[in-house]
Amino acid sequence: MFGWIENIDWTGLLVDIGIIAIKLVAILIIYLIAKSIGKRAIEKAFSRNNKGMTQARSKTLQLISVNIFTYFLMFIVIGIVFDLFGLDIKTLIAGAGIIGLAIGFGAQGLVSDVVTGFFLLLEQQIDVEDYVTVAGKDGIIEEIGLRTTKLRGFDGTLHYIPNREISSVSNHSRGNMQALVDIGISYDDNIDTAMRVLQVACDRLASEDEDIMEGPDVVGVQAFGSSDVVIRVVCKTKNMQQFAVERRIRKALKEALDQHGIEIPYPHQVNITKSN
Amino acid sequence: MFGWIENIDWTGLLVDIGIIAIKLVAILIIYLIAKSIGKRAIEKAFSRNNKGMTQARSKTLQLISVNIFTYFLMFIVIGIVFDLFGLDIKTLIAGAGIIGLAIGFGAQGLVSDVVTGFFLLLEQQIDVEDYVTVAGKDGIIEEIGLRTTKLRGFDGTLHYIPNREISSVSNHSRGNMQALVDIGISYDDNIDTAMRVLQVACDRLASEDEDIMEGPDVVGVQAFGSSDVVIRVVCKTKNMQQFAVERRIRKALKEALDQHGIEIPYPHQVNITKSN
Amino acid sequence: MFGWIENIDWTGLLVDIGIIAIKLVAILIIYLIAKSIGKRAIEKAFSRNNKGMTQARSKTLQLISVNIFTYFLMFIVIGIVFDLFGLDIKTLIAGAGIIGLAIGFGAQGLVSDVVTGFFLLLEQQIDVEDYVTVAGKDGIIEEIGLRTTKLRGFDGTLHYIPNREISSVSNHSRGNMQALVDIGISYDDNIDTAMRVLQVACDRLASEDEDIMEGPDVVGVQAFGSSDVVIRVVCKTKNMQQFAVERRIRKALKEALDQHGIEIPYPHQVNITKSN
Amino acid sequence: MFGWIENIDWTGLLVDIGIIAIKLVAILIIYLIAKSIGKRAIEKAFSRNNKGMTQARSKTLQLISVNIFTYFLMFIVIGIVFDLFGLDIKTLIAGAGIIGLAIGFGAQGLVSDVVTGFFLLLEQQIDVEDYVTVAGKDGIIEEIGLRTTKLRGFDGTLHYIPNREISSVSNHSRGNMQALVDIGISYDDNIDTAMRVLQVACDRLASEDEDIMEGPDVVGVQAFGSSDVVIRVVCKTKNMQQFAVERRIRKALKEALDQHGIEIPYPHQVNITKSN
Amino acid sequence: MFGWIENIDWTGLLVDIGIIAIKLVAILIIYLIAKSIGKRAIEKAFSRNNKGMTQARSKTLQLISVNIFTYFLMFIVIGIVFDLFGLDIKTLIAGAGIIGLAIGFGAQGLVSDVVTGFFLLLEQQIDVEDYVTVAGKDGIIEEIGLRTTKLRGFDGTLHYIPNREISSVSNHSRGNMQALVDIGISYDDNIDTAMRVLQVACDRLASEDEDIMEGPDVVGVQAFGSSDVVIRVVCKTKNMQQFAVERRIRKALKEALDQHGIEIPYPHQVNITKSN
Amino acid sequence: MFGWIENIDWTGLLVDIGIIAIKLVAILIIYLIAKSIGKRAIEKAFSRNNKGMTQARSKTLQLISVNIFTYFLMFIVIGIVFDLFGLDIKTLIAGAGIIGLAIGFGAQGLVSDVVTGFFLLLEQQIDVEDYVTVAGKDGIIEEIGLRTTKLRGFDGTLHYIPNREISSVSNHSRGNMQALVDIGISYDDNIDTAMRVLQVACDRLASEDEDIMEGPDVVGVQAFGSSDVVIRVVCKTKNMQQFAVERRIRKALKEALDQHGIEIPYPHQVNITKSN
Amino acid sequence: MFGWIENIDWTGLLVDIGIIAIKLVAILIIYLIAKSIGKRAIEKAFSRNNKGMTQARSKTLQLISVNIFTYFLMFIVIGIVFDLFGLDIKTLIAGAGIIGLAIGFGAQGLVSDVVTGFFLLLEQQIDVEDYVTVAGKDGIIEEIGLRTTKLRGFDGTLHYIPNREISSVSNHSRGNMQALVDIGISYDDNIDTAMRVLQVACDRLASEDEDIMEGPDVVGVQAFGSSDVVIRVVCKTKNMQQFAVERRIRKALKEALDQHGIEIPYPHQVNITKSN
Repeated sequence: MFGWIENIDWTGLLVDIGIIAIKLVAILIIYLIAKSIGKRAIEKAFSRNNKGMTQARSKTLQLISVNIFTYFLMFIVIGIVFDLFGLDIKTLIAGAGIIGLAIGFGAQGLVSDVVTGFFLLLEQQIDVEDYVTVAGKDGIIEEIGLRTTKLRGFDGTLHYIPNREISSVSNHSRGNMQALVDIGISYDDNIDTAMRVLQVACDRLASEDEDIMEGPDVVGVQAFGSSDVVIRVVCKTKNMQQFAVERRIRKALKEALDQHGIEIPYPHQVNITKSN
Repeated sequence: MFGWIENIDWTGLLVDIGIIAIKLVAILIIYLIAKSIGKRAIEKAFSRNNKGMTQARSKTLQLISVNIFTYFLMFIVIGIVFDLFGLDIKTLIAGAGIIGLAIGFGAQGLVSDVVTGFFLLLEQQIDVEDYVTVAGKDGIIEEIGLRTTKLRGFDGTLHYIPNREISSVSNHSRGNMQALVDIGISYDDNIDTAMRVLQVACDRLASEDEDIMEGPDVVGVQAFGSSDVVIRVVCKTKNMQQFAVERRIRKALKEALDQHGIEIPYPHQVNITKSN
Repeated sequence: MFGWIENIDWTGLLVDIGIIAIKLVAILIIYLIAKSIGKRAIEKAFSRNNKGMTQARSKTLQLISVNIFTYFLMFIVIGIVFDLFGLDIKTLIAGAGIIGLAIGFGAQGLVSDVVTGFFLLLEQQIDVEDYVTVAGKDGIIEEIGLRTTKLRGFDGTLHYIPNREISSVSNHSRGNMQALVDIGISYDDNIDTAMRVLQVACDRLASEDEDIMEGPDVVGVQAFGSSDVVIRVVCKTKNMQQFAVERRIRKALKEALDQHGIEIPYPHQVNITKSN
Repeated sequence: MFGWIENIDWTGLLVDIGIIAIKLVAILIIYLIAKSIGKRAIEKAFSRNNKGMTQARSKTLQLISVNIFTYFLMFIVIGIVFDLFGLDIKTLIAGAGIIGLAIGFGAQGLVSDVVTGFFLLLEQQIDVEDYVTVAGKDGIIEEIGLRTTKLRGFDGTLHYIPNREISSVSNHSRGNMQALVDIGISYDDNIDTAMRVLQVACDRLASEDEDIMEGPDVVGVQAFGSSDVVIRVVCKTKNMQQFAVERRIRKALKEALDQHGIEIPYPHQVNITKSN
Repeated sequence: MFGWIENIDWTGLLVDIGIIAIKLVAILIIYLIAKSIGKRAIEKAFSRNNKGMTQARSKTLQLISVNIFTYFLMFIVIGIVFDLFGLDIKTLIAGAGIIGLAIGFGAQGLVSDVVTGFFLLLEQQIDVEDYVTVAGKDGIIEEIGLRTTKLRGFDGTLHYIPNREISSVSNHSRGNMQALVDIGISYDDNIDTAMRVLQVACDRLASEDEDIMEGPDVVGVQAFGSSDVVIRVVCKTKNMQQFAVERRIRKALKEALDQHGIEIPYPHQVNITKSN
Repeated sequence: MFGWIENIDWTGLLVDIGIIAIKLVAILIIYLIAKSIGKRAIEKAFSRNNKGMTQARSKTLQLISVNIFTYFLMFIVIGIVFDLFGLDIKTLIAGAGIIGLAIGFGAQGLVSDVVTGFFLLLEQQIDVEDYVTVAGKDGIIEEIGLRTTKLRGFDGTLHYIPNREISSVSNHSRGNMQALVDIGISYDDNIDTAMRVLQVACDRLASEDEDIMEGPDVVGVQAFGSSDVVIRVVCKTKNMQQFAVERRIRKALKEALDQHGIEIPYPHQVNITKSN
Repeated sequence: MFGWIENIDWTGLLVDIGIIAIKLVAILIIYLIAKSIGKRAIEKAFSRNNKGMTQARSKTLQLISVNIFTYFLMFIVIGIVFDLFGLDIKTLIAGAGIIGLAIGFGAQGLVSDVVTGFFLLLEQQIDVEDYVTVAGKDGIIEEIGLRTTKLRGFDGTLHYIPNREISSVSNHSRGNMQALVDIGISYDDNIDTAMRVLQVACDRLASEDEDIMEGPDVVGVQAFGSSDVVIRVVCKTKNMQQFAVERRIRKALKEALDQHGIEIPYPHQVNITKSN
């Protein structure tokens, strides 16, 4: 029954195992060297390019890079080891195919999140405390994670936005902002007079309000409304002060027009009476 | 007829079977070791990182991780065993190709659900009882499942939302909320007076209402309406009290304006009569 | 001409055929065992987990599971048999490639339907007779099929909805519903008085109407309309009675306001006459 | 020059050709048997399940099934024959790759059409003469083809709709339909009186009109309009009579209100005159 | 240096070349036979099925079919020849992979165009001179090409529409069309009288106008407008005469109402004067 | 140490190198022949089919075709050479897989651009100076490139549109255009009189204005407006003169109606006064 | 135990290593040559085609091209080296499959960004300081990067737009712009007179305003408004002066009409009084 055991080439088997053992050690050594070199290369690249970045941000990016490199290396080593034992890794992969493909698709979003998050951090498109519009949502950035960015809406809502949903970023905290007020005057009022009155009010406000950086200037007749001639006023303000400045300009313009007897007209209608 | 039977190399066959048997045992041992190591690694990872998570939530996440790991391992083992018997697993996979691909696509949604569900739990983006907006639907979270999240709408409807439909999460139960009331005063009223009256009413309400955390403050002239000057009032409230507080502010402001004879204006129209 | 026939190794051929025959029998036995084990495993899994499910529903799910398992097994067996005869199944599959891929894509929707249908049944998201909103259509569920769900719209239309179109399910037949009525009062009326009158009417209705589970409560000033102050009333009703209750609340509120001489105001307009 | 011809192993070639010939015959026989079995299986399946289907519809479905089966079989046979002659079919397929892939994508729509068409016929979702809404188009079905469904719009237009565009089907010819009429009464009229008058008119119409199956019932106050209280009337009608019945109900209700001096109010406006 | 030349097995090489030459000839013959058979099969198929098709249309379709068949055959032959010379066509294809895949995707639209164009011609969904709506554009078909369909809009614009953009076709030139006119009468007028007057006008027009095929019929009260009761009139007209007929019906109805003193009402408003 | 060098089969190596060299020369010759044949075939195809095309356009198309052919050939040759040296090109391609796939996807748009651009030129759908609507943008074509088409909007903006974004082309510079003017007359005016007056004005304009090709014709009552009966006038004009002609028709019609005392009515309203 | 060591063929191993070493050197040399040739070819291509491009822009493009070429070459070399050591690179790639595919998809956006960015630079579609509309956002270009373009909105917001989001580019800084003003005159005013008055005002403005390049011209009656006849005025202005010029034209036209007593009409309404 067990005569066949003698037929096994035990010596050849030992030789095979020995060669495999030698190869395993070689692979391990090469792996450690490659890992060490890669890690140092990444660190050097970051230490050279971290101008203008905070220490924490630079650290985070470096950590991610090292991790991704290590995972990649480990996969290759596992592949080589499988190959060594004569196990066709392709066969296994194929066996894990349905699951693998499905997970691949499912996890695709995850990878997109990390890639986008990496660039959000690297290019400093957004910072904590910035007022931004991303993925159709307004708010103040509370936290930038690798997978998710947290945004605090002005109504208090906390938005969790997966980074892959962030394509265009509109950052409202990068430099001075524009305040813009449209005000209507009557078709019967003189445009020149009205513009002069408004400009005087603007100039007085500019001298009093230190949130205003430039202007406000009365730029002219923006539109003919159905019942009013619309005059536009624009100015540059300190960042995040644009809404407050707009409110102050509105108040100042209204009071200036009141003083000079220029009305902001209600909707008008011409009535023609016809007897039935 | 059966002379060919003698031609079969029965000894070689036995040797082959013996080697296969040895390999099968080796595979089983390696499988059990790998499973045990992987399981412990996952458990350790969770015991180290479960800060701030409830016991139940942590348990659920650990269970999923172990399951996924086990399924993956089993697939690899099945692959190796197939390979051992000289059955090309790729061939079988190819044979199952049409069905497999179809199921792969069909089940893709399922995997996406689980992956998203995993992160919803892990990052604690939503909790049961939270008031959230996800996938365009408002409501209170009733249950967070791996595949489906249940959301109770304010009209009583129960929404079953597959997790993959949940990308951005707007959680309205994370900290204080903002109450915002816009109120119009006549173009003929003095803005300063009106704002002073409104602020006094706000301050009295703030002292009486413990749901109000900050404010309410009259922030200024928000817009020029067609018949009214719009004044904006904002305040911070306890979570989920924002709607009730807004209603109380509206009532208080209306009563304050009534007392001081400041009207909330109806739409105005200037009529010019022309004879036909 | 036929001398070549002698050159054929008839004995070797017979040996080959014999080995194939033995293998075929072995495959058949393994197939039957695997099928039997799989079937029992599925049945046990269902008998253990059928809490809260109707007998019919559980039966349907079990049937589907067994069918899918059997088809999968059969494909693998066909693959092995092809392999046995030295026919490279990949070659055939490749030959059937254009058709196969096309059908694969075409039938993808079919698989998605079945997978979604499976979960609709398993998670009991919808039941026959439920009032739901799925795929943008309102109605009462008439039948839940594996491929298609039938929905009877309120206007009598029968909607056939492929299950893959059903992602989020809004089920309006899971617990009490909310009735919500907004009613406007004049800016000249006293808000306190009006709210008191409305609350009294609500309380009387609540005591008379057994479809009302909670409330109705007058929650306060919901908005400042252009000509009215909007008061909101909400209550909880028995399922599917929300529309009837809303209608009864509207009638009761209108009659209460009439009795106390509080008008529901028409649109107002202030007219200023200007001579041309 | 032609000495090499002697070097060719003519006998071996003949043996090869002979074996190929034998195999070819075997393949042909197996093909014919498989085709015959498959055809009969399909026919039996249809003869067993054709309950409720018209003869023509059943015939069409059977034809399609047999055709698809035959094409599939033929492709496999061609593959085996190619393989026999030592032509690697994969190579050819790869050579035809660019064209093949392109056609595959291009023809994908075609397959989707046929698959959807098959289920439209099988599940009897639509029948000729049915009034349906599919792919955003209203009309009467004129013809259901495998690739295209013809729909006659009410304005006379003939819509050709590829079956793949038909996902949800809204069939308006499956059972009784609902007629729904909203009618406004003045805020000054008594709701009870008006509802009683309307119900009397509804009851008289119901007794006269045999297209009405149930109702019409006055269900109550549906909404507070800006100038009217909206009362809703619903009833069940014979299929396709809903529009005619709605028109008759409208006429009857208007006449009933006229008789009892209850006006359907025009838009109202309260005018406040302010001197400029 | 050139001693190695003697080592080359020149005889074996010649034998190889001889076999290749024989095979090449065989391939050529098979190719020509296959091409000839395929061509005739296509021609027969068309000569059998060209009922109702114009000669030109049938010719075009036949030409396309033969072309596609020939290209397919040529690709297979090139593949076999490559294989013959020991050049792995897969390798080349792989080498051309990046370009190939890219072109494959890019040209996909082209194939879609031709496939759709083929069916547009085959199923006669559109003909030159037809008034159709395709891809959201209205107009008269000027030319149906394999890749592009030319549509002349009513404003004179020439639309070039790639056939793949044509999914649903709405053909307005297939049978009689419906003319539909809605006309409003006052709430004070008697509905019966008005409908009688309108029907008389319709009947007179029907007797005079030979573009009208059926009707016009006054179908009843279509809606309650804010100031008018809307009466609907419909009729069937000759194809493409629907717009002209609608205009004539409008004129006739207006004149009939004028004669009988029934007014088409202007918007109404009830004014309530309130002193400020 | 270097004894192993003797073990190398130097003669065999030389033979191998010799064969490779011969093959390389053969490949080069075949490549040059194939290139030359292909180039001439393309040139002939273009010289035969350039009817109606400008010299420049034909030259561009020919250049592109030759380029694409050459690149394709070169890729195949590189593949064969790699194969010759025993380097598995698939391995390299696989090695370049991640990059390759990514670029493949990224460059896909580029290929789509060129394919679409090719057909835009070939089918002459657009020419420089044409007024077209493509990709939702109006304007005059400034340049048709292989990748991008430049469009000058009427406001002066220069649109760069990637060709792949151009699917349907609406070309407004292909033949006469339609001018269409709708004008309202009072419900009190006689429709016949008004149409006669308008037609007379149209005829006079037609005789004076050489931009008008056909008409203008008064086609009848287009609609019942809320306060006016809308009469439609249409005519055919020279290409690009439609806007100018419409303006002239509007002026002429207005003046004609003025002369005959037919008013273009303002919005009407019937006022009913109700005492509060 | 270690007797097997003697069984290893040390000489053969040395020979193998020697051959590998020779091949490695050969690969290195070929790599350096190929890299050098490729680099020079790219440099030449750029030095020949840099007409009209800034030095910096040309340098950037050249750098990118060289980088891409180098990475591609390196990948191929790594592949060859792996192959040399008998490591099947496909196996490794397959092992890295799940990660690789996922990253491939994730990084796809990155490649799209770079490809689009490359063409944005190459075709000079946008320059820093240009006023453009891209991806639905208006603003002034601040920086064109390979991955991201920075756009400064007029309200001060800084938009970070990934280049792949930029498909159609609308560049408002390429040549003169059009200013367009519509102004309404009364139905009672003479159109000829009004147009003459407006043209005179336009001519005076043209002579005074050096931002105006062509016009302004009164082009005629653009539309019949509900209460006014709309006259259109257009002119060509210096780039970016269109808004300022439009404002000046509006002011000038209004003043001209005022001087000649031509009113810009308010909305008109004809009132018909009906007694209730």
